[in-house]
Amino acid sequence: MANVPSDIEIAQNAELKPIAEIAQRAGFADGDFECYGRHIAKINREKCLELSNAKGAKGKLILVTAMSPTPAGEGKTTTSVGLADALASIGEKTMLCLREPSLGPCFGMKGGAAGGGYSQVLPMEEINLHFTGDFHAIGLANNLLAAAIDNHIHQGNALGINPRRITWTRVVDMNDRALRDIVIGLGGVNNSVPREDHFQITVASEVMACFCLATDLADLKRRLGNIVVGYTYGRKEVCAKDLKVHGAMTALLKDAIRPNLVQTIEHTPTFVHGGPFANIAHGANSIIATRAALQMADYVVTEAGFGADLGAEKFVNIVCRKSGFRPNIIVIVATIRSLKMNGGVAKADLGTENFEALSIGLANL
Amino acid sequence: MANVPSDIEIAQNAELKPIAEIAQRAGFADGDFECYGRHIAKINREKCLELSNAKGAKGKLILVTAMSPTPAGEGKTTTSVGLADALASIGEKTMLCLREPSLGPCFGMKGGAAGGGYSQVLPMEEINLHFTGDFHAIGLANNLLAAAIDNHIHQGNALGINPRRITWTRVVDMNDRALRDIVIGLGGVNNSVPREDHFQITVASEVMACFCLATDLADLKRRLGNIVVGYTYGRKEVCAKDLKVHGAMTALLKDAIRPNLVQTIEHTPTFVHGGPFANIAHGANSIIATRAALQMADYVVTEAGFGADLGAEKFVNIVCRKSGFRPNIIVIVATIRSLKMNGGVAKADLGTENFEALSIGLANL
Amino acid sequence: MANVPSDIEIAQNAELKPIAEIAQRAGFADGDFECYGRHIAKINREKCLELSNAKGAKGKLILVTAMSPTPAGEGKTTTSVGLADALASIGEKTMLCLREPSLGPCFGMKGGAAGGGYSQVLPMEEINLHFTGDFHAIGLANNLLAAAIDNHIHQGNALGINPRRITWTRVVDMNDRALRDIVIGLGGVNNSVPREDHFQITVASEVMACFCLATDLADLKRRLGNIVVGYTYGRKEVCAKDLKVHGAMTALLKDAIRPNLVQTIEHTPTFVHGGPFANIAHGANSIIATRAALQMADYVVTEAGFGADLGAEKFVNIVCRKSGFRPNIIVIVATIRSLKMNGGVAKADLGTENFEALSIGLANL
Amino acid sequence: MANVPSDIEIAQNAELKPIAEIAQRAGFADGDFECYGRHIAKINREKCLELSNAKGAKGKLILVTAMSPTPAGEGKTTTSVGLADALASIGEKTMLCLREPSLGPCFGMKGGAAGGGYSQVLPMEEINLHFTGDFHAIGLANNLLAAAIDNHIHQGNALGINPRRITWTRVVDMNDRALRDIVIGLGGVNNSVPREDHFQITVASEVMACFCLATDLADLKRRLGNIVVGYTYGRKEVCAKDLKVHGAMTALLKDAIRPNLVQTIEHTPTFVHGGPFANIAHGANSIIATRAALQMADYVVTEAGFGADLGAEKFVNIVCRKSGFRPNIIVIVATIRSLKMNGGVAKADLGTENFEALSIGLANL
Repeated sequence: MANVPSDIEIAQNAELKPIAEIAQRAGFADGDFECYGRHIAKINREKCLELSNAKGAKGKLILVTAMSPTPAGEGKTTTSVGLADALASIGEKTMLCLREPSLGPCFGMKGGAAGGGYSQVLPMEEINLHFTGDFHAIGLANNLLAAAIDNHIHQGNALGINPRRITWTRVVDMNDRALRDIVIGLGGVNNSVPREDHFQITVASEVMACFCLATDLADLKRRLGNIVVGYTYGRKEVCAKDLKVHGAMTALLKDAIRPNLVQTIEHTPTFVHGGPFANIAHGANSIIATRAALQMADYVVTEAGFGADLGAEKFVNIVCRKSGFRPNIIVIVATIRSLKMNGGVAKADLGTENFEALSIGLANL
Repeated sequence: MANVPSDIEIAQNAELKPIAEIAQRAGFADGDFECYGRHIAKINREKCLELSNAKGAKGKLILVTAMSPTPAGEGKTTTSVGLADALASIGEKTMLCLREPSLGPCFGMKGGAAGGGYSQVLPMEEINLHFTGDFHAIGLANNLLAAAIDNHIHQGNALGINPRRITWTRVVDMNDRALRDIVIGLGGVNNSVPREDHFQITVASEVMACFCLATDLADLKRRLGNIVVGYTYGRKEVCAKDLKVHGAMTALLKDAIRPNLVQTIEHTPTFVHGGPFANIAHGANSIIATRAALQMADYVVTEAGFGADLGAEKFVNIVCRKSGFRPNIIVIVATIRSLKMNGGVAKADLGTENFEALSIGLANL
Repeated sequence: MANVPSDIEIAQNAELKPIAEIAQRAGFADGDFECYGRHIAKINREKCLELSNAKGAKGKLILVTAMSPTPAGEGKTTTSVGLADALASIGEKTMLCLREPSLGPCFGMKGGAAGGGYSQVLPMEEINLHFTGDFHAIGLANNLLAAAIDNHIHQGNALGINPRRITWTRVVDMNDRALRDIVIGLGGVNNSVPREDHFQITVASEVMACFCLATDLADLKRRLGNIVVGYTYGRKEVCAKDLKVHGAMTALLKDAIRPNLVQTIEHTPTFVHGGPFANIAHGANSIIATRAALQMADYVVTEAGFGADLGAEKFVNIVCRKSGFRPNIIVIVATIRSLKMNGGVAKADLGTENFEALSIGLANL
Repeated sequence: MANVPSDIEIAQNAELKPIAEIAQRAGFADGDFECYGRHIAKINREKCLELSNAKGAKGKLILVTAMSPTPAGEGKTTTSVGLADALASIGEKTMLCLREPSLGPCFGMKGGAAGGGYSQVLPMEEINLHFTGDFHAIGLANNLLAAAIDNHIHQGNALGINPRRITWTRVVDMNDRALRDIVIGLGGVNNSVPREDHFQITVASEVMACFCLATDLADLKRRLGNIVVGYTYGRKEVCAKDLKVHGAMTALLKDAIRPNLVQTIEHTPTFVHGGPFANIAHGANSIIATRAALQMADYVVTEAGFGADLGAEKFVNIVCRKSGFRPNIIVIVATIRSLKMNGGVAKADLGTENFEALSIGLANL
């Protein structure tokens, strides 16, 4: 395997096509999208709405999941990309739908989340950094709600929010351990009230979950308004809409909600959009993106985070119920390594040669 | 004045030209820029470098400042836009350089910062919200440095940083009073060390100041590395480069540093790029943007924040020294209202009819 | 039962004898004790030492404990007082040894802890308030150690104490919920280092446990020196003696360690001395007091806090091992109410007439 | 001066008389006082009341103060003791009234506060440590009020106290820098509300000031009730009596308020009672003690803390007004050392031989 170049070498040597060409290949007209640089586009608001409102999916949905994962990952994204490219290469009109990667683990050790080898989504660097700013907007919406809570209390607390029963936390798109448990509102009478607070990573925000479950901007606003942020002194729940901040939150997300179009190394059109953590939320890309893809392509490959018992279970029980999706086939990625490790083989005895994925398709669900 | 439409009505009814057309009008070739949507572009890395390295400014620099300000503002930006449009309308090749507005005061009461009436920079909404993500990137770079400090201490504190002598703070692009004075690092041994910390608004970050004074990416990296973040137990200063984090900070800013191109209502090409607070930093847009404009246009109008004694003084003593700029004329915006208010007239007696600006040009400095 | 006066009426109407007379009755000579007001005495240092060093107990030890307790208490102290008074009334030379009550629950709802009805220890009010200041001294010794830890870290931390691994807490002789979880060391570089700390109630202090297990002042100093206050960065334990503060702590306790002599309503000589919580420490009065009583009297009645499975178990396994005591009989107090309640009868059905204690003596252990 | 023994040697070698004998010498009958050990007595409640209510002072009041102090102190207490002893030695019926020393600076560097050389008050060790527990009681009363505030807020805050406008702080009888600025009420919904708090040293408590200005227990209760502890959301002041806690605070102080009787090395009867800091309070012993002494003796020597401009000024303007005292003579202690130091002589040039006090009497004020 010594001659195989590294993921980053492959990514940097890949020749990308202008995103406009990819968009056309996917079936979008010139006015349907806007470019964000040469290799990224966002679908226009009107086109998004048109696709959201279309009755019935045209394409078939292929869900990729995996057996119980190991620290190295089993290769769900790589399999998804490869499958989409394969379908495209035999002439099927295919789209791929993936999650946006979190910057947090990226600065940590896990690296980006755009596939590997010749099965990557590009432009890798942009996708792994700010991309089109969706996560920034989601973080900002989350933190605007947090600021609104503290400011409401500061301005007299008409709702009677109990500062010790606030469940909403702030977020930052970074692994910042020093912000996990903090005390805010110090410094005297002008700085709201002292209380214990927490920063989570942006992908763990409920705004992210709402964002990925929303079917359009109006639905997003409704979902944001219904977020429970804490409880009153009388133990009554307080929602974002009680603070009248869900409108401003939605305004911050008006462009983020438009799916981002990129390409695989083999130029298969790919939506990379939204990215809730699978351990605490549903772990799948936005419903808006998948629904749009199902209108544009005959085959749509998407992925559920974590193992089948977590990610696929949530996809079937949450995403499918909310969206009406019915996967036509589910692919379970399994590796010999994971079989060994989950079977109890010691780490030292795992070897390095057994990453081959065994993909099993479960059709006609 | 009853028939004059509001700023926002004017902005929404304005007909914008495609940004590619504006770029061409400014003298940029097709490969010199990338579009971010239909009405915003970022200059390419190579073109930025070429313009940065060019010897001598081709254009003349017009600096707009104002007398001591009043809460409503005296109209510096409006004057700047009007002046640039006027020069363009008489056939002079003109560019305008302005600061990016902060989202913080925007959610507060001050409103956007892109001019007013028929002297506005567009697309107003995008400029006032996420724009091209520059401020998000600057905030992230600031907070990456903060996280690196706490993580360094957590991992054994090889540099001997005194947690009580850390001067670096975190930032958020929002007015969030509850985050002004906080205690971080609580929750036990895994969450770094407890210490008092603060969140400032992003535009007050020293990263923003470095960003706007840098002449190119290498210079930015050097400036970021030299930031003093605190002191050791032995009272020796600790810099960002001691934490080896300035490289990653620079990587986060690699696209942010490319000037953003937009247009006025009258289609004058405009760079809106960078925005340090004038009260704590130098209050002018990026040197990179102004320097690029001086290569492309015969007349470049730019603006110094706050009153002349603060913003213009800093422009002359800081920006000019670092950049080599020599304004060919300085315009001081004065209003009857400000003359009255600064002269002691009671607020109730100010009237509403005396906003007319008296602009005084000081040439041949 | 309507004609029975309340505990406090009984206490206030009781006629106390001068404490010097009680001391003489117990066998103390004039120079063996000092008066603290008219009805409280402290045994002198020299006499304490003489009694501590005497070989073998002269008296027989009667330990009073109880079945699983109910919120109202089963009457251990009342039984102990009654038993001691009964023995004294039939002419046996008897002494009683009890714990000092905590001021904390006293301000709360539980009331004092000096028996009830005609089986009380007096002067009730003094015993329940400051008494001879023992608990103040213990609290001060505890907090001196806490201050020494923070000051050591502040002065350069030669021992390398990890502020996040300090296990020693401060105490206050009061139920003060707001002090349970706090952050200290704020306010800048002069105020030691920020860290999470806690206030416990004084009776829960390890100083109290050491105090009650010590056989004399030298032994107390050794025990205090061995207290583990936390761990270094290298996970090595740090003791009070490493901070060289155990000498000063012992100095603060030099008078507290002398047993306090009072009387029952029937004038039986009683030591009330020390009072560790039975739930977290061993829940019995000081070994010094019981050992002294065993030299002075033929019968010594003492009490183990909480139920038999907790207090008596600790008395037998901790106090007896450290002191060499061997109870000649153990009395278990049981009430019909407790049998009912622990047997599952609903609170409403318990009735009010079944508080009669069934005391069971287990002799010749 | 090499042959002069140290203060502590003098104190330890001094032969004290039984405190009952001293009390008799001062004119107290047997039933007027209670012993606290062999060398300390507290005046009985009834006698205190009788002395408080007596009309007109019998004795003459001598106030000792000093010129602007130096770090070493000028010798006010030493002069006061010497003056009282001298008056007693020529046959005048004399009493001395001094403040109780604070344990805090005691553990620090300043040492005790009971005079020096052969002009000391004894028993030194007891006076410098717990003494009769007055300061413990004062600290406890202070902290009971603090706990009552937080508990009131916790229980629903019927008074509408703004937690950010609480001015009352907790105290500890120790120099504990880590407690100066803290955040309390953390740990969740059961631990009252999070807020910034502070610990002061006990002698700086307003309870101490009230204690020393009170004329009897009823007056103390009134003063404690009037303490302002903070402000409501509507900026109305909240007093201790609004929390109904001043009764319990007074109960805690019922014995502390009885003056403590001790002796000088030359057996002059001395009240050592109360001790507010002169920098923040009035810096004189309790009015109750001085008033009692003025009934018992022909000459009463007392002392005002700090320099004349601070301590004597407050004695005249606060203590005299509240008590009706009129000093018959004021003695100002001045040292050559202080004259030099306050005159600007460098520390190195001060010499060690010029501590001689020049005492100036200002009679017939």
